[in-house]
Amino acid sequence: MAKQPARESGRYAYDGLDRVIHEKARLGILTGLLTRPDGLLFNDLKSLCALTDGNLSRHLTILQEAGLVEVWKGVKGKRPQTLVRLTDRGRGKFREYLNVLEGVIHDALPAEQPKAEGTFRRGWSPA
Amino acid sequence: MAKQPARESGRYAYDGLDRVIHEKARLGILTGLLTRPDGLLFNDLKSLCALTDGNLSRHLTILQEAGLVEVWKGVKGKRPQTLVRLTDRGRGKFREYLNVLEGVIHDALPAEQPKAEGTFRRGWSPA
Repeated sequence: MAKQPARESGRYAYDGLDRVIHEKARLGILTGLLTRPDGLLFNDLKSLCALTDGNLSRHLTILQEAGLVEVWKGVKGKRPQTLVRLTDRGRGKFREYLNVLEGVIHDALPAEQPKAEGTFRRGWSPA
Repeated sequence: MAKQPARESGRYAYDGLDRVIHEKARLGILTGLLTRPDGLLFNDLKSLCALTDGNLSRHLTILQEAGLVEVWKGVKGKRPQTLVRLTDRGRGKFREYLNVLEGVIHDALPAEQPKAEGTFRRGWSPA
């Protein structure tokens, strides 16, 4: 047990995990968009994220209201299309979020990696 | 835009992000417990995660019902105490979750890191 947890108060609060971004489906949407600066068509995004039309629309509305994505209506080859892109704000906020996420993994993983030193009692000798 | 998104269908679905674990407060609780194999007292966990009594209790119930943590009642120095520990199942499930989380960062970050090679047009020479 930690001896002085009071000094580490809030250590695992992870306030930077913005709930708008942290939701599983929206995390997928943002990851897909981050790697594609030109944006993605609605149907491609839907397929990449394995979402229904309704679910993707609902999540895009939330992301749009938070100013993280922009949605464009247009026509491509005579068919109406919807293009989704990350805004500059969205890119910045998602980068911040990813930094916190890396912090979570950094906090959790030391416990998972066996240490070569310090696991044996000092001064012990088989002789 | 991706040329053949159909072939990458579900690429950003992240099914491995178990909702029981992915919730922000529970992610903090599990990270705190993973690094402390002996467990944490309720009050220390509450402080580390910056949660209220009610919130921590509610999240622990959810984690207990999923078999991820175990809760022990006892007495320490004449005062009743509650000890929380990760179960073996919890440790395994959380490890799996962290692997998926690393995958998210791996998917997102290539777009963020400038590449030294390939950004210049080949064959160009200042001479």
